[in-house]
Amino acid sequence: MASVDVPVALLGYGTVGAAVNYFLTQNADDIERATGHRLRVVKALVRDVEKERNFNPDPGVLTTDFQEILGDPSIAVVAEVMGGMDPTGGYVLDLLRAGKPVVTANKQLLAQRGAELFAAAAEAGVQLRFEASVCAAIPVIKVLREALVVTNVHRVLGIVNGTTNFILSQMEGGKDYAEALADAQARGYAEADPTADVSGADAAAKMAILATVAFGSRVTLDEVQYEGIERITSAHVQAARQMDMVVRLIGRATLVQGKVDVRVSPALVDRAHPLAAVEGAFNAVMLQGDAIREITLEGPGAGGIETASAVVADMVSIIGTTGTGFLHNDASYRNLERLEPGELRSPYYVYLRVDDRPGVLAHMAERLASHDVSVARLVQHEQNGGAALHVVTHEARAGDVAEALAEIGELPETTSEPEALPVISERGVAELGWA
Amino acid sequence: MASVDVPVALLGYGTVGAAVNYFLTQNADDIERATGHRLRVVKALVRDVEKERNFNPDPGVLTTDFQEILGDPSIAVVAEVMGGMDPTGGYVLDLLRAGKPVVTANKQLLAQRGAELFAAAAEAGVQLRFEASVCAAIPVIKVLREALVVTNVHRVLGIVNGTTNFILSQMEGGKDYAEALADAQARGYAEADPTADVSGADAAAKMAILATVAFGSRVTLDEVQYEGIERITSAHVQAARQMDMVVRLIGRATLVQGKVDVRVSPALVDRAHPLAAVEGAFNAVMLQGDAIREITLEGPGAGGIETASAVVADMVSIIGTTGTGFLHNDASYRNLERLEPGELRSPYYVYLRVDDRPGVLAHMAERLASHDVSVARLVQHEQNGGAALHVVTHEARAGDVAEALAEIGELPETTSEPEALPVISERGVAELGWA
Repeated sequence: MASVDVPVALLGYGTVGAAVNYFLTQNADDIERATGHRLRVVKALVRDVEKERNFNPDPGVLTTDFQEILGDPSIAVVAEVMGGMDPTGGYVLDLLRAGKPVVTANKQLLAQRGAELFAAAAEAGVQLRFEASVCAAIPVIKVLREALVVTNVHRVLGIVNGTTNFILSQMEGGKDYAEALADAQARGYAEADPTADVSGADAAAKMAILATVAFGSRVTLDEVQYEGIERITSAHVQAARQMDMVVRLIGRATLVQGKVDVRVSPALVDRAHPLAAVEGAFNAVMLQGDAIREITLEGPGAGGIETASAVVADMVSIIGTTGTGFLHNDASYRNLERLEPGELRSPYYVYLRVDDRPGVLAHMAERLASHDVSVARLVQHEQNGGAALHVVTHEARAGDVAEALAEIGELPETTSEPEALPVISERGVAELGWA
Repeated sequence: MASVDVPVALLGYGTVGAAVNYFLTQNADDIERATGHRLRVVKALVRDVEKERNFNPDPGVLTTDFQEILGDPSIAVVAEVMGGMDPTGGYVLDLLRAGKPVVTANKQLLAQRGAELFAAAAEAGVQLRFEASVCAAIPVIKVLREALVVTNVHRVLGIVNGTTNFILSQMEGGKDYAEALADAQARGYAEADPTADVSGADAAAKMAILATVAFGSRVTLDEVQYEGIERITSAHVQAARQMDMVVRLIGRATLVQGKVDVRVSPALVDRAHPLAAVEGAFNAVMLQGDAIREITLEGPGAGGIETASAVVADMVSIIGTTGTGFLHNDASYRNLERLEPGELRSPYYVYLRVDDRPGVLAHMAERLASHDVSVARLVQHEQNGGAALHVVTHEARAGDVAEALAEIGELPETTSEPEALPVISERGVAELGWA
């Protein structure tokens, strides 16, 4: 196949944009071998063409005029690496409507304007790829859309926020929450205002994107129930360890009889589960489906170079599939119902303090049983003159657990507000109707 | 994009072939959404058309005549799921030469005739895809070729044989080698003659394929130095545990200053390393590269349904990239030198027994030091009136370690043949010249 020069453009030329240009320049031969084409950055939109850059583009590439990209019919694909919502969203929409495929690393843009952008891409018959928007270089979107096309993925479990995973790993090593957070900030893993990470909001946006792709039905950020790690203390971490589990911030997207549930919360992960082994600022996503049992992808979930690697892969994949119809449609092609939140089933870890006298345990067990919540493991120990109870339940409806705990909380012998965290232990199984 | 009916064919219709037909039938809508095409099995080559099948094809699909597939110009892609070398190899070659893209799950065929088959595919300008030949549904080939196209992968670490990983996991639980092997055989994880698995030969064939794709330079089975788990005893497993490590059969493909080294051997894996968490019959592959640090993929590495899932993904990917030049070339495009085996650097675990008297430790340490092997950790304990030494070295040349151990083995106070196993602890780092 003859080599074809393919002009491409960038919106933004910061760390990620410069790395994309570096990769396309340094690896031009590799890319040509894979695609038959040489991708070359001919325009990059910036605010200031005079600013010092990490990797300088050719003279004349930097521009402050978006029309030079939109109006250039030779540009075959555009990568949006400028971030933000405005004017970014308008630029991406204009490009798609003009028939230009777009690659974006912009999680918030997809979470907030995904429906509109994908509709424009589908109408124009061009691709909108977004690997870098979730977990940087970990190719979870490509794997879901291209490798697992017939596997009926019904559950996605993810550690999709490196900051919180780093903090929880540090707490496992003995630090308390404030020390671990300060350490994360000192190393650049957490921002001065860490709210977006520690509140679970960042993870929720990523889980919305993953659920949309995995289930083919649009999930928006406001549909994701999320809770962060702010209330996790060393006591949780120690209790988990005593039961051979670890505390992790887990995103869960689940398809239950055709209904979708997406949530993010701290959870206790069984030490034998692959997600328990994910340490530090790393991310991991486990995909469970009928034909594959489970596949887990793990790696660094952030970083400019890692993000650029994913952006380039998407650009190359677009050039390699243009005109064939492949992935030219919206990843969301159906509109699934939402599961009523109380209906999601999971094993739970329950913690409460009670008076240390005869009959208390029976009382509590009876309340759980009356809501169909059965006890798998129980550890009781003395604490400040009373008793601390650590309970792991078998799988139960979230609603039943909440109701049982509300009743237990009102018992006179209960001396603390009962707490519940989901337990992650389930593994994928192959279930097919054909054999 | 208009729906286009795409006739496809299968060589073989056993468990995998029937599952491929099932997936293409049941998931036709999903596939059409992704590719714009509906794939339909129109012919399947079998030895006996009357045999009972798991999922029956349409009447007239089964045939015993290869020419009905080779000579049908409407067939757009053929999946080889019959296995074996002959007549399989000839069929695949004929199909490629006739301009038909082929998908194969046949590891031995690729390891033995890969160069010839890829040359034929490249000459005809068609794709030969082989995801299912390594680790079943774990999409490591797609990730290497399509997601990591610009990442300069320089190391592949793999647990690519589920049988041996199951046996080693059982030994960690307290069984001895013979018990663990018997258990694997009882569960169907190991064959009656387990040689191909426990000798490391199966893992070596997979590592040859992975190294070829990762480095773009053909590695054949006879170039892979391999050693199995037959000599691993409970003593190794216990020694590893005492040093917070686990024993695993690890494939290593390494690029050292442009030279290739591929080997398979038992190794001690640091418990904090992602590969230490891979339990039971699962497989995992860690890819380390400049732009990604490291990405690990884990999942079931075998199974008929899992294999079929990977075969279908390859068929769909071929239809989605036909005519664009994408992956139409041989994955092997250069001819790299081989690293001299003694040159590979690694930390090592060394075990030996010595007389328990003054000066012995100094003697041994001196021999190691004289070969530039420095000691990172040492545990000495009494054993049968003598002393057992467990040593973990810093990174050292394999050749230096071998020479030092040969000398130590000849010291009068050494009472056992010194043993060495590589230690796997290194993590990927981002190293780019651009910033």
